[in-house]
Amino acid sequence: MRLGTLLIHDVREILRDDPEQVRELLEEIHPEDIADLVAELDADEAAQLLERMPSREAADIFERLDDDEQGELAVLMPPASVAQIASEMAADERADFFSVLPEALGDEVLEHLDEVDHEAAQEVRDIEKWPETSAAHLMTTEYVTVAVTATVEDAIAAVRKEAMLESDAPVYNVYATSSDHRLLGIASLRQLISSEAHEKFADVMRTNIISVPPDMDQEEVARRMAKYDLNAMPVMDEKNVLLGIITIDDVIDVLAAEQTEDVQKIGGIAPLEVSYFKTSFVSLVQKRVVWLIVLFLGGFFTETALRHFDPVFQAVVGASYYVPLLISAGGNSGSQSSTLVIRGLAVGEIQLGHWWRILAREAGMGLVLGLILGAIGFMKVMAFGTMSTAFAATVGLTLVGICMTGCTVGSMLPIGLKRIGLDPATSSTPFIASLVDVCGILVFVHVAKIILRSVIAAHGAGH
Amino acid sequence: MRLGTLLIHDVREILRDDPEQVRELLEEIHPEDIADLVAELDADEAAQLLERMPSREAADIFERLDDDEQGELAVLMPPASVAQIASEMAADERADFFSVLPEALGDEVLEHLDEVDHEAAQEVRDIEKWPETSAAHLMTTEYVTVAVTATVEDAIAAVRKEAMLESDAPVYNVYATSSDHRLLGIASLRQLISSEAHEKFADVMRTNIISVPPDMDQEEVARRMAKYDLNAMPVMDEKNVLLGIITIDDVIDVLAAEQTEDVQKIGGIAPLEVSYFKTSFVSLVQKRVVWLIVLFLGGFFTETALRHFDPVFQAVVGASYYVPLLISAGGNSGSQSSTLVIRGLAVGEIQLGHWWRILAREAGMGLVLGLILGAIGFMKVMAFGTMSTAFAATVGLTLVGICMTGCTVGSMLPIGLKRIGLDPATSSTPFIASLVDVCGILVFVHVAKIILRSVIAAHGAGH
Repeated sequence: MRLGTLLIHDVREILRDDPEQVRELLEEIHPEDIADLVAELDADEAAQLLERMPSREAADIFERLDDDEQGELAVLMPPASVAQIASEMAADERADFFSVLPEALGDEVLEHLDEVDHEAAQEVRDIEKWPETSAAHLMTTEYVTVAVTATVEDAIAAVRKEAMLESDAPVYNVYATSSDHRLLGIASLRQLISSEAHEKFADVMRTNIISVPPDMDQEEVARRMAKYDLNAMPVMDEKNVLLGIITIDDVIDVLAAEQTEDVQKIGGIAPLEVSYFKTSFVSLVQKRVVWLIVLFLGGFFTETALRHFDPVFQAVVGASYYVPLLISAGGNSGSQSSTLVIRGLAVGEIQLGHWWRILAREAGMGLVLGLILGAIGFMKVMAFGTMSTAFAATVGLTLVGICMTGCTVGSMLPIGLKRIGLDPATSSTPFIASLVDVCGILVFVHVAKIILRSVIAAHGAGH
Repeated sequence: MRLGTLLIHDVREILRDDPEQVRELLEEIHPEDIADLVAELDADEAAQLLERMPSREAADIFERLDDDEQGELAVLMPPASVAQIASEMAADERADFFSVLPEALGDEVLEHLDEVDHEAAQEVRDIEKWPETSAAHLMTTEYVTVAVTATVEDAIAAVRKEAMLESDAPVYNVYATSSDHRLLGIASLRQLISSEAHEKFADVMRTNIISVPPDMDQEEVARRMAKYDLNAMPVMDEKNVLLGIITIDDVIDVLAAEQTEDVQKIGGIAPLEVSYFKTSFVSLVQKRVVWLIVLFLGGFFTETALRHFDPVFQAVVGASYYVPLLISAGGNSGSQSSTLVIRGLAVGEIQLGHWWRILAREAGMGLVLGLILGAIGFMKVMAFGTMSTAFAATVGLTLVGICMTGCTVGSMLPIGLKRIGLDPATSSTPFIASLVDVCGILVFVHVAKIILRSVIAAHGAGH
């Protein structure tokens, strides 16, 4: 049971009877838990609650809400209050917040923000220039800078000044910049504390700086920060001008969101923007039906192929009953291969240049898996079936061919998609399965035509 | 191109010609890039390189290697050197490192470590008591504590002392503990810097502490830290004794590893312990073949079902060619549902108690998706086929039934698995597809028996 859920009745009662008290009640609660509570309240109650809180704390809670909750609440509050709350938000959260507002409301709030905090409004405009999934939208402009001529004492004083002004964003580093705001070096708070007060900042700072450009994709930013175990990373333009910093907490959210997207794509669904229950029924139908229709229309090729090879199935009575079994083995092995490759590409273990190594490995894998399944299939048909030995051999050999097809198609398709600039996760397991289905029928029929030649010829002659 | 790859020829040459130089060459390179380089070198070259480096830096690189690389290198180096490097590792990395060593070697290294750093060796023994996927294995014992009676100045002095001794682990907080090491409060470095030197630590510190017990599963630890945007979180036993802290960088690795595991399970593969290329061919066959055999044997039910309903397929010529098309629609819609639910459970958006809401939603979803696909199927059969209107209606209605089956089975299975204590991701998309295949055949035959009653009866009479 979440704390927010436990409190909801008390909060509702207080909002109704004595709304001024609500501030006091929530004083001791962690903002994350208040955010849970706000998410559970009706939108108008939540808006009322947020208006009662000091804008600093309201901003803290606002930052933790989902995009759609933010949008829904902002519409219910006076634009001036929204601007007040926005002025207290962290710079990166603020830019994200404006991107969820309807355009007209966004402009109105931005005008109010201009009055409250002109600099913040200008920052929002600066960040909005960059694509929504770029590094710029992750960065905050709340960081501590000093001149490169400063001492350690100056730097610590700068942190203190910043810490007094703003609230709870963690300070990891102090950045030394030139007069034209180019980044020259970085020292961690810890390094500063363990240095002598009179030492020069320039002697303490690191100068080999790992940074990102503002237009880098957020996924890549996240991967770089995780790789180098950084808790904050500067964003610099091509002239080394410091534009902002990205902190680790934002990166965790990006990683989680990216992975949800990948999982959903692998499962054959257009990624949801919000959680399962918050996605409306109609929007969920839309996210699912397009892929289902594509796969369904593609599936008609199986019907066409089977009809085309009607003579074979007429000749070998019962053969058609093995079709679903055989083709699903191809789909299953192909799903495994595509999953491995998609994930390998996502975490950077697999590079495009490796494609031939993967192809060779997966072809061998398909051969081995096919031989194992083929042997089982052969024995199963012999043991329980009413079919001939020749047909059992057909099933066995078909499985070898189908598993090899599944593994090679399943592994190469994500790589091909990535090479032409598409997301490899688009080659979802249902997509691979459907693609391999048709191949599987072709393999089956051609193996049958070779092994069961005499049976098919005899049946043809009989007509 | 990675930096490590670019350097490999230079490093090889130097190791051969003048190994003493290697230390100088690598001085300016980020440890992460040296770790890349070490991973590319042959194991004996890598071992040689690590032995040439100061043990502090070697430890820094060692920490960044994969488990299997660590194990491989440790075997090639003298146990005393390994103990020396282990003594310089962060406490959490050290415990992990011992868990990858073969038991005999681990014991030997631990004995050497006892001499170098008895306390560190004792910590390894303490951590090894807990399960490998527990919070205890993530925690470090490198943190700064003060007595609760300390001043802010004392706390900053303690950070300085700690910072002088140890190396680059970030210090986020100072922890106030009682004489029996119970945790009483936390102050961030930033809070300390912005307070007056003579203030009491107890007046600055936070006392509402979000912590975890040592046996909590790492996945849950990661989720809690991400939720509360914490960069460090204490691990406490039931008496509030501070055992260690978990920092955000370790949590990112847990999140990524967890998600790879989930993706692989959804794709129908037993999770790999190491990356795709590092997993041996034989081990990859083992990881894949078990599921394939299970699904394959399950698939024989489709053959049995089709054979059982032979009279229906005999009566309605061409009906069997529609089977793969129809059953794959069920598999696809079922995969979508199970993917949504698995991911929702993984990120905590969906709770088990919600099952009836999900069931209602997915049944409705299956109905709508089935009606859309059914309408398309009906028109397609009418437009291109040589089949009767009654058969087209059979196809349409079957699709409604199959999509409803797919969505309900696909969504309920992960929930059921979780309820009985299994991992919901076990209901992989191939598994759902295979399960729904058989259901799909049953739906198809029964709809056909109702709608095509007269055709089937006539055919039966004709025999």
